[in-house]
Amino acid sequence: MSASDPVANLQTLIRCPSVTPAEGGALSTLEAMLVPLGFAVERIVASEPGMPDIENLYARLGTDGPHLMFAGHTDVVPPGDETSWRHPPFAAEIDAGELFGRGAVDMKGGIACFVAAVARHIEEHDPPKGSISFLITGDEEGPAVNGTEKLLKWAAEKGERWDACLVGEPTNPDVLGDMIKIGRRGSVSGKVTVFGVQGHAAYPHLADNPVRSLLPLAAALMDEPFDTGTPEFPASNLEVTSIDVGNPATNVIPAKAGFAFNIRFNDTWTAETLKAEIIRRLDKAATASPLRPGRAPARYEIVWAERPSHVFLTRNNGLIASLSGAVEEVTGRVPALSTTGGTSDARFIKDYCPVVEFGLVGQTMHMVDERVALADLETLTQIYGTFLSRWFDNALLS
Amino acid sequence: MSASDPVANLQTLIRCPSVTPAEGGALSTLEAMLVPLGFAVERIVASEPGMPDIENLYARLGTDGPHLMFAGHTDVVPPGDETSWRHPPFAAEIDAGELFGRGAVDMKGGIACFVAAVARHIEEHDPPKGSISFLITGDEEGPAVNGTEKLLKWAAEKGERWDACLVGEPTNPDVLGDMIKIGRRGSVSGKVTVFGVQGHAAYPHLADNPVRSLLPLAAALMDEPFDTGTPEFPASNLEVTSIDVGNPATNVIPAKAGFAFNIRFNDTWTAETLKAEIIRRLDKAATASPLRPGRAPARYEIVWAERPSHVFLTRNNGLIASLSGAVEEVTGRVPALSTTGGTSDARFIKDYCPVVEFGLVGQTMHMVDERVALADLETLTQIYGTFLSRWFDNALLS
Repeated sequence: MSASDPVANLQTLIRCPSVTPAEGGALSTLEAMLVPLGFAVERIVASEPGMPDIENLYARLGTDGPHLMFAGHTDVVPPGDETSWRHPPFAAEIDAGELFGRGAVDMKGGIACFVAAVARHIEEHDPPKGSISFLITGDEEGPAVNGTEKLLKWAAEKGERWDACLVGEPTNPDVLGDMIKIGRRGSVSGKVTVFGVQGHAAYPHLADNPVRSLLPLAAALMDEPFDTGTPEFPASNLEVTSIDVGNPATNVIPAKAGFAFNIRFNDTWTAETLKAEIIRRLDKAATASPLRPGRAPARYEIVWAERPSHVFLTRNNGLIASLSGAVEEVTGRVPALSTTGGTSDARFIKDYCPVVEFGLVGQTMHMVDERVALADLETLTQIYGTFLSRWFDNALLS
Repeated sequence: MSASDPVANLQTLIRCPSVTPAEGGALSTLEAMLVPLGFAVERIVASEPGMPDIENLYARLGTDGPHLMFAGHTDVVPPGDETSWRHPPFAAEIDAGELFGRGAVDMKGGIACFVAAVARHIEEHDPPKGSISFLITGDEEGPAVNGTEKLLKWAAEKGERWDACLVGEPTNPDVLGDMIKIGRRGSVSGKVTVFGVQGHAAYPHLADNPVRSLLPLAAALMDEPFDTGTPEFPASNLEVTSIDVGNPATNVIPAKAGFAFNIRFNDTWTAETLKAEIIRRLDKAATASPLRPGRAPARYEIVWAERPSHVFLTRNNGLIASLSGAVEEVTGRVPALSTTGGTSDARFIKDYCPVVEFGLVGQTMHMVDERVALADLETLTQIYGTFLSRWFDNALLS
């Protein structure tokens, strides 16, 4: 069956320039692979006022339970400076055992391997005794407003129920088999504006330099750890990602100054308790004002980014064991069960069913010369195939 | 004589939007006031490669000594957010005894009063037994490259010599008569760029957030006084005037971050010893890096602004006594002989003749709603008139 070769699958997908929000032919290509395998494929266009429409895909093979979902995205980040690539980002050229192209590991590669694994599974076992579905969005690298979250809601409203989900994002730091993701930290962002009094740099007593207020506020968010981590999660970490005053005149003390921050947090916190802690730190630092001796407390305003990403942790032993066992069987490696890294669309899926993530090695994701070893594509296809067998066996037993 | 009303003079000048480097009609307006008084007016355009041309004005009444120069500038700083003003910044509206507008005190007001004082002096005394000149630039609030310094050189080369100079910058902190400036602190500016390693906010250990390096560097320049002042000078003071990272993505750790600073320094320092002290502080803070425990010292680069302003002090007793006596006669106040505040073009003039500075109350200079009390304009005109009489009497005696 043609779709059983992950390399060919991936080449076809990479040649579709599906930079968010463009579909680029990627979902049509995927549909053309799935239909011959027996999948019922639906294409769903999601809209939001003021944003480009996004194409998404949902495909199901089988009608009974148990029901396993594979989730992912065909959209890719922009290639950046195309002339910096050794091979053109949408040419899918093979060089010395590696396949080059935007999306090779994040995450057209994961999709290509899972399609191949399903094709081989059908060849070897006939259709599984249950259902397999693909939930694929074109809006993961973008605002993620018209993507997985809406697609899940749409499918659930028409009666779809899932017993487990595997997300095919790149999860391995160095070598295929290193790491399964069983949870993700949450993420909260905010912007702080600090107010002062504008004036002449030569008359600082007539002004109130907001930079003198800002420095301790920004430092207070980074100088003490929020926690030391949990058994499953690394420590929460906050980065001030920008400070912007925009005052071009060195003889003028500015009226205000602002900074932006992002915190990745573990299940020691909720988004709400964390926001309270951040405000506590800011208020304390505003009162101390060591760079403004004798002045009133610093005045600041905080605006939180919309839609924080909530922390989650999957504890479904059957799902984790099926995947971990498949990795070990194929690679000989016992994968770490990790919660490190960024957020992923698994944060939406966890509200519907247990979810784990496993895909390629992430080292070149989002970079120039994103690429994947052909050997890794074959190995991941075998891992996914072994996982399919193990998961259905386990689900049918229980 | 029409130019004898300082309020009318100032309204006409404010209505010329002469934000550096624009002439805005301000020098033409001044020329139209001076010509009827008998002044020989010259307009001098100064050029510098890569910078906008600047218009300047030199006007002289009389040909003999003693020769008194009045120096100042018609350019003004930008109004900032015009909608924040109670009255439009270039409308020169009067409200409850105050005249509103950019430049009202810094320093179209000083020019308006000196013109009025000269007009009244001519009415009452005939032309003075000596010469009065106006040396007025359009480049004091800007880079000051095409302004007073070049104008002085141009005038000196054609044979102009002066016995004394009065600069009309706002010198009074609270009440007219508070303060004469007999010297000025120096000023040094610089920009610091701090280097890090770009990365994803979720993987801070793979990146090196330059904001974590920047915060202690910027704080180190402001947290300890540079000195406690001298008998003639206040303490040196440094302000970080801007911090700019310009990173729009909250999930990205930026590659570099920068800040700008300005220090006003007394004769405890030279520009050179001060730069060495600033580098010593930065190096020390770079090594400590409390927000980057276990990391190598912060990497930074410093670029000094061209042409630091050197510190100076005037000790001409006749000039100081004429001005101080005039202030006391008109206001009943004995003015402080001060060296506080910003730099002024007096730093260039002191190389040609003794120079002192006296003008309006500086509280609203460079701010939104810059304004001057009408009563202050009349009082300053009387002080300038009394100073003219006293200075010529004194100069002719000696």
